[in-house]
Amino acid sequence: MKIATFIGSSRTESNSELLADTVLKGIKHQKVYIKDLTIQPINDLRHTKTGFQTVDDDYDQVIKAFMENDVIIFATPIYWYSMSGIMKNMIDRLSHAIRVERYPQFKEHLKKVEAIVLAVGGDEPRIKGLPLIQQFQYTFDFLNMRFSSYILGEANQPGDILKDSQALSQAELLNKRLKFSHNTFK
Amino acid sequence: MKIATFIGSSRTESNSELLADTVLKGIKHQKVYIKDLTIQPINDLRHTKTGFQTVDDDYDQVIKAFMENDVIIFATPIYWYSMSGIMKNMIDRLSHAIRVERYPQFKEHLKKVEAIVLAVGGDEPRIKGLPLIQQFQYTFDFLNMRFSSYILGEANQPGDILKDSQALSQAELLNKRLKFSHNTFK
Amino acid sequence: MKIATFIGSSRTESNSELLADTVLKGIKHQKVYIKDLTIQPINDLRHTKTGFQTVDDDYDQVIKAFMENDVIIFATPIYWYSMSGIMKNMIDRLSHAIRVERYPQFKEHLKKVEAIVLAVGGDEPRIKGLPLIQQFQYTFDFLNMRFSSYILGEANQPGDILKDSQALSQAELLNKRLKFSHNTFK
Amino acid sequence: MKIATFIGSSRTESNSELLADTVLKGIKHQKVYIKDLTIQPINDLRHTKTGFQTVDDDYDQVIKAFMENDVIIFATPIYWYSMSGIMKNMIDRLSHAIRVERYPQFKEHLKKVEAIVLAVGGDEPRIKGLPLIQQFQYTFDFLNMRFSSYILGEANQPGDILKDSQALSQAELLNKRLKFSHNTFK
Repeated sequence: MKIATFIGSSRTESNSELLADTVLKGIKHQKVYIKDLTIQPINDLRHTKTGFQTVDDDYDQVIKAFMENDVIIFATPIYWYSMSGIMKNMIDRLSHAIRVERYPQFKEHLKKVEAIVLAVGGDEPRIKGLPLIQQFQYTFDFLNMRFSSYILGEANQPGDILKDSQALSQAELLNKRLKFSHNTFK
Repeated sequence: MKIATFIGSSRTESNSELLADTVLKGIKHQKVYIKDLTIQPINDLRHTKTGFQTVDDDYDQVIKAFMENDVIIFATPIYWYSMSGIMKNMIDRLSHAIRVERYPQFKEHLKKVEAIVLAVGGDEPRIKGLPLIQQFQYTFDFLNMRFSSYILGEANQPGDILKDSQALSQAELLNKRLKFSHNTFK
Repeated sequence: MKIATFIGSSRTESNSELLADTVLKGIKHQKVYIKDLTIQPINDLRHTKTGFQTVDDDYDQVIKAFMENDVIIFATPIYWYSMSGIMKNMIDRLSHAIRVERYPQFKEHLKKVEAIVLAVGGDEPRIKGLPLIQQFQYTFDFLNMRFSSYILGEANQPGDILKDSQALSQAELLNKRLKFSHNTFK
Repeated sequence: MKIATFIGSSRTESNSELLADTVLKGIKHQKVYIKDLTIQPINDLRHTKTGFQTVDDDYDQVIKAFMENDVIIFATPIYWYSMSGIMKNMIDRLSHAIRVERYPQFKEHLKKVEAIVLAVGGDEPRIKGLPLIQQFQYTFDFLNMRFSSYILGEANQPGDILKDSQALSQAELLNKRLKFSHNTFK
């Protein structure tokens, strides 16, 4: 079992990244900082004669991370009750990626991928983060990905997530489960 | 009463734009194509010593559109059950704008602004678009803006929104109301 | 095409009933006042040796209304952001009904039924009624019923729904569609 | 600090009750089985000349449990993605209770009450139970009650909740917190 984490924050050592680190403590994994990639917003050319055109940016690294792993963790700060804009742009481009000839196995591969969401916010995230979870659910349903679990954490100041005992205890449980699968199926 | 519309699609004459045009038929308004603006993703510097830094891009035009109008219409395609990434980046930057000294009246002005959301999608938007509406609600609540109405429209092919009789009838009602206020309060 | 409406209010001529009447103006249909039926709350005996037991109340009338119609309209006031308790008790008993030998075709019949929800509330129903719509969606999905449309209306005083122009215009559109199908397929 | 739990299941030792027992292990509390009370559905007489009338049933016991405690736990099975009908009928009657002269302090007392929700279902409760949590949030907001936490547990067969490690770990955390407050403030 191989694991990749997409980090959606604009900060390093953001609370969402710290939560992901807790989930993955002692587990080998790939970490992708979305903020360090150049990702163009989607240009919806589905309905044009030519269809989607190749985009010259770093999105291939995103595709690669999806393709080479079995578990994908989306770790995002909650900005305005939703994922960060840079993660949203990355997600939007999936509409292109699943239709592109260069990645013939992409759609098929996703069906075998387990998705996990870690989202950290400052304004009642365990209530006001629920619509975000529902959107991820609809997205994973559409892509036939298995949405195995999510954690909504609370934090305002940098590092605050490490004081959220509920999020931490969920993270530790998830860590145990992933460790177990990792050792068993690698 | 002055009205601005933010268009969140990557296409011109997108279904969300057509819906906005129906809502605003015969009403003078400002139209802002987000796709034509350069807007950097937010860089969350709230917790640094220096705080937020001035960003050299087109965001001042966004601020201006907010400041000079009384009704703001957010017209977005539904990409992956949420607003488009380019609109999300624009929204994210509000965290910066409401804290910046250059716009001392911005936060105060928003309290007098009426917000309207028009969102068009292809996969059961009137159900699967509900989390997006809830997120806008939380956002407008936070900013003390009045969320007066929304329309969820259904469309797949370009122009399809003009066949969605429910969305069109809601748009016409809204058009009448805005026309009435426009004439009364201008 | 045959239509039945379940009225979930404790009042006669409630706002939710008035909305249903608008939707069904000029269309023959069956009206079931849940408040006039004796319906026991579900007794969850799924996991006992004997299983569900026959309940001596009016629930057979509910089953009959489902079985004899092709369109079922759920018209409910929004009490505490959800359907009324008497409608909820009626819905809960479906868990029994779909497992009972006395109604062998019940589950199969539901797959051909179109469901419509009309819900009227006083506290921002078009926002705070959204979770109720999502619950109906999950319910109809589980039962393989088609959820064709819903209307969220606003009303506080008796009769107020007749001033909600958005709900009324949606109701008239729905009336036209149902009339058309009614004449075509009866 | 005094605690009451409302049990919304039709079964004894239901999964939702077992979850409540875990949360309250070693903590003195009052347990109210809604199924053992006679509670009439609400009769909405707000708009009549006479207003609400006294109802001859066991609702006073519900009021009493609210009044005599500082923490109220709502433990319910998830039936059709919502609380059980018997709990809903109990909640509906709050509309009456907050307007009745017999309980002059009721509304005021609620503002000091902490609310906790425990809900257990069999069909992806951590996703499909989210609308229920949102409805509780709106309800507690309306009543000015503090919604401190919730647990969504998964169970199908009787006793299954004891295998849901995530729900159990959340329950244990909550137990510690309640124990601490209980000892500190009693």
